[in-house]
Amino acid sequence: MAGSELTNVKSPRVKAARRLTKRAFREQDRRFLAEGPQAVREALKLDGVTLELFSTADAELRHPELITEARLKGVPVHRASGEVMSELSQTVTPQGLVAVCTLVHVPLDEALAEQPRLVAVLAHVRDPGNAGTVMRAADAAGADAVVFTDASVDPYNGKCVRASVGSLFHLPVVIGAPVSAAVRQLKERGLRVLAADGAGKHTLDDVDLSGPTAWIFGNEAWGLPEDVLAEADDVVRVPIYGRAESLNLATAAAVCLYSSARAQRVP
Amino acid sequence: MAGSELTNVKSPRVKAARRLTKRAFREQDRRFLAEGPQAVREALKLDGVTLELFSTADAELRHPELITEARLKGVPVHRASGEVMSELSQTVTPQGLVAVCTLVHVPLDEALAEQPRLVAVLAHVRDPGNAGTVMRAADAAGADAVVFTDASVDPYNGKCVRASVGSLFHLPVVIGAPVSAAVRQLKERGLRVLAADGAGKHTLDDVDLSGPTAWIFGNEAWGLPEDVLAEADDVVRVPIYGRAESLNLATAAAVCLYSSARAQRVP
Repeated sequence: MAGSELTNVKSPRVKAARRLTKRAFREQDRRFLAEGPQAVREALKLDGVTLELFSTADAELRHPELITEARLKGVPVHRASGEVMSELSQTVTPQGLVAVCTLVHVPLDEALAEQPRLVAVLAHVRDPGNAGTVMRAADAAGADAVVFTDASVDPYNGKCVRASVGSLFHLPVVIGAPVSAAVRQLKERGLRVLAADGAGKHTLDDVDLSGPTAWIFGNEAWGLPEDVLAEADDVVRVPIYGRAESLNLATAAAVCLYSSARAQRVP
Repeated sequence: MAGSELTNVKSPRVKAARRLTKRAFREQDRRFLAEGPQAVREALKLDGVTLELFSTADAELRHPELITEARLKGVPVHRASGEVMSELSQTVTPQGLVAVCTLVHVPLDEALAEQPRLVAVLAHVRDPGNAGTVMRAADAAGADAVVFTDASVDPYNGKCVRASVGSLFHLPVVIGAPVSAAVRQLKERGLRVLAADGAGKHTLDDVDLSGPTAWIFGNEAWGLPEDVLAEADDVVRVPIYGRAESLNLATAAAVCLYSSARAQRVP
């Protein structure tokens, strides 16, 4: 720390980071914001991903190991006033740490290069919190990749990054793949493509999940469009044993992904 | 409809409903608010639960079947102006329907009277959205009851009611049970009590879930306290196959409850 604190919310440095809260600028600048200690910790583990770190004096005291880690890696650390942090933060109670990161997604063929056995595809998923929670569940279930199709939310959205709790930095993430192209490539790689949909003929309990599998999850409100259902190898629903009409998207995705993870591991 | 519309947010009727957004008044008046078409539909299915219904003119046009159903059941329907609806609604985009309902929870011994095979216990769960999502998942997984221990969020909280998407009306819900008393009663009824915790020695894949089981889910941030872990028959974690540190509470609960549901049904 040079001892000086950023206090001017209109300074070029703050404005350059602030604009990354908008998707168009993230795409233009090829950068995004990772907020909070957990995201910053995971970002710092990847070489060259963290470009600069903003930290309040309080956060420096709470997370000295992250400040040290950033300096060791040659990442510029800027001390920011509470006002500047509020400008950069997208949470109600800012945790005092925001990193500017390079985009981390990879092309689809790269993500699928090493014989993946479990892939999650988000098609038309619009809620960033749901998308981040699915990324986290996919990571926990040991998925090899997460694919955001072209009609899905931006995984670099602040809420999505937070809900992923670092998982965005853990596994290959693909962005903007047309759903048909993704399904075709997944099939070519030998994965069975299952569309998760409440209208499925088969339930999770009826299908053999022991082989390489890609799950497609659809929109929160209206599920998956007909053409996606038609392209999948099978349409599978989570069985509803009680009186609930459905499960929410992230919950259903976690149940599907864990069913696959278990079937692939437990004889 | 008497043709007149409630437009005065200070009218006694609106104020009497409005105060139910606060827990202390819900407890005092023994009533709560169920907002949105799905919650209203499920509330109307239970005899005597819906005491009155507020509806905007727009919502009447969108959901005439609910207005008809309410009238058939002798539930007073009040047409409300947009301003009155905003006063009663706890959502950013009100859907124009709010029902005043009697409390629906039951005592613990009543909830456990009929040889339950799957029970979800929420201990120290504080986030109403998480709690509602767990209720919905428990309902979907065919659980026989959901128990909110004394240190958990109020299930009648508007956000919890919404996240449950009607499940609050589907299965017996218990409120305010001390966790020790709940564990003791569950054991007496022949249920195996499993604490879901990331520190568990066993994973979901190692335990036999085919018998009657109660799952205890803890706080979002710090899990379950030592005394609860000690009282449980076993502490079980969802296996993490990838690099995520953990799963979020509602996701982990859904994976546990569905593992039980499946083990109890699929040979």
